[in-house]
Amino acid sequence: MTAFQARGRNRSTDTAPARNAGTAPLGFAVVPRIDEATREAAKCRFDTLTKPQGALGRLEPLAAQVCAIQSTLKPVITRPVAIVFAADHGVADRGVSAYPRAVTEQMVKNFLSGGAAISVLAKLQGMKLWIVDAGVDGDCGKHPRLITAKIRRGTRDFVEQATMTPDECRNALRQGRAALERVTVSGTNTVILGEMGIGNTAASALLMHGMTGHQLADCVGRGTGLDDRGLARKRATLEAAAARRAPPSDPVELLTEFGGYEIAMLTGAVLAAAARRMLVLVDGFTVTVAAALAARMDPSALDYCVFGHCSAEHAHRALLAHLNVQPLLDVEMRLGEGTGAAIALSTVRAALALFIEMATFEGAGVSGKDS
Amino acid sequence: MTAFQARGRNRSTDTAPARNAGTAPLGFAVVPRIDEATREAAKCRFDTLTKPQGALGRLEPLAAQVCAIQSTLKPVITRPVAIVFAADHGVADRGVSAYPRAVTEQMVKNFLSGGAAISVLAKLQGMKLWIVDAGVDGDCGKHPRLITAKIRRGTRDFVEQATMTPDECRNALRQGRAALERVTVSGTNTVILGEMGIGNTAASALLMHGMTGHQLADCVGRGTGLDDRGLARKRATLEAAAARRAPPSDPVELLTEFGGYEIAMLTGAVLAAAARRMLVLVDGFTVTVAAALAARMDPSALDYCVFGHCSAEHAHRALLAHLNVQPLLDVEMRLGEGTGAAIALSTVRAALALFIEMATFEGAGVSGKDS
Repeated sequence: MTAFQARGRNRSTDTAPARNAGTAPLGFAVVPRIDEATREAAKCRFDTLTKPQGALGRLEPLAAQVCAIQSTLKPVITRPVAIVFAADHGVADRGVSAYPRAVTEQMVKNFLSGGAAISVLAKLQGMKLWIVDAGVDGDCGKHPRLITAKIRRGTRDFVEQATMTPDECRNALRQGRAALERVTVSGTNTVILGEMGIGNTAASALLMHGMTGHQLADCVGRGTGLDDRGLARKRATLEAAAARRAPPSDPVELLTEFGGYEIAMLTGAVLAAAARRMLVLVDGFTVTVAAALAARMDPSALDYCVFGHCSAEHAHRALLAHLNVQPLLDVEMRLGEGTGAAIALSTVRAALALFIEMATFEGAGVSGKDS
Repeated sequence: MTAFQARGRNRSTDTAPARNAGTAPLGFAVVPRIDEATREAAKCRFDTLTKPQGALGRLEPLAAQVCAIQSTLKPVITRPVAIVFAADHGVADRGVSAYPRAVTEQMVKNFLSGGAAISVLAKLQGMKLWIVDAGVDGDCGKHPRLITAKIRRGTRDFVEQATMTPDECRNALRQGRAALERVTVSGTNTVILGEMGIGNTAASALLMHGMTGHQLADCVGRGTGLDDRGLARKRATLEAAAARRAPPSDPVELLTEFGGYEIAMLTGAVLAAAARRMLVLVDGFTVTVAAALAARMDPSALDYCVFGHCSAEHAHRALLAHLNVQPLLDVEMRLGEGTGAAIALSTVRAALALFIEMATFEGAGVSGKDS
């Protein structure tokens, strides 16, 4: 049975409701279903390896997911890339972040010159690091790894108006896809997604509130490190925005109303990566919000996502639970940039190495359970 | 200030009670205190790096711990080795494991031929893997990476008598030290400790009960995958052992009464590694029990330990909490062999790379908080 047959057969016997009817929104390609037959075959193979059943814990379903994504029992991480989408937010002027908005531009330069956390981790993991200027309020200059896709110098302030126009939102979604496609070299099958944008946990909180229906207060956290007074100000600011306009249920309208350009591009990048059957390593709160938006647009997209870590940002744990997914790491990181996902790549690699290289009970002459 | 001065100064101003008074038990070298001045300097340096304060979460104290162990602000993992101590347990004949005791010997051969999980992970991490036959009930043969230190073909059954003689216990502790010293090549500063022994979570449960005072039932888990009936049998068996002899409070007596040869050797290896100022990556439940025993013999030993993961084995979480330590990974693994610690090494490496290579706010021209 070829992989294609496995996919086809699985699809034909699938009892889930039909989705998207062959067309995806905004001209995005429909995300193919992952190969459930291969996932099951991977699970069966794990039970033949020299270890008690299930003893590798969550590494087993993790490797099986990658098998299903790649539709093979020889899964491999090939030429992984990290992409950080950066943009500014109109609301940042209201003091919803511990840092001034100038830091977004400064950090883009730091990413490119190799001094930021994600720069260090990308090098450690052997990944190319790309930065996308999605809407930084400044001049990021030129650099071979900088993709300039600036929609505008920062979004509008959502307390007063929609952060972007519908055209800008659609454009940002498409630019996210274009960036993903540009950084994908021959064989790249894994992408780490990160973000940078002073004020973007404020936007993310409104988006989460709109998608999950969780109380807005429960979606708001300290971001880069707000003190109690700053947190109260952030909450009041977001309450004012939600009072101006109740969050729309349509994901694109929701993004248009409250989103950031980097968040819209991340959403487009998730959809594009999933459409290309790539493994998507999701970072923290804001990237998870983008993954959730992508899943609203095409539910199959979520099957391509591995959630690298649970951030210390207050609402991330609840959002992961809402998506019914479990993060790999939980070490109180809250930096963004893709750092949690970059570290988690090591765990994915370990899971795949174990799956491929371990001996079977039969091959190694090891007795099975209760034998 | 040299590293040596830093250590000396810290020690002289230390207000903790004097320990060991210059001699360690059983001829073990006294474990030196880790370098608290360097730990504090590392924490201060983290606050100068281009990220919000504390945003790397637990990676920050982790890197600072390694700095303190190595007494340098340029910490590095050099030539790490993994050592798996293997032995059999008399109690295994009472059906306290889902697997027959023959599996211990079979798995030793699997470790050496490269098919076991720890074999795969050691290769992935670039570590030499050593196996110590501490008391396997079988013939493990000869292999360049096998250290034969067999005390006896398995311990005695603790339901009926002490598992080892006092001489055997002291010998095993010393053999653990000898094995650690033998595998340490020039520059090795990091060791991953693992174990293999059908029945050893039963022994570990009694040891934990003796050390922590936790109810015995709370120290018992399913090990390699006991069903409900097997778990009830394991509990009853351990209750019988504890009824024969209340667990002694002295760690060496406790080991003598209920321990396994691999657990005693692990205890000796932890003490020896800490005495050499090595970073010790602790794996799951049984290795944590050994680390706890080592800490009973010399409390400073615990400062050299990083706990790689929290096992799905029931009692591990409570034991980690008792030791007041936090594991790095928590992905429901329960395989032993050192596998959780081996995967966690990637996180340690990431923490050190970030600490050493990230730019400072000043160097990168990034604005600080609220500036």
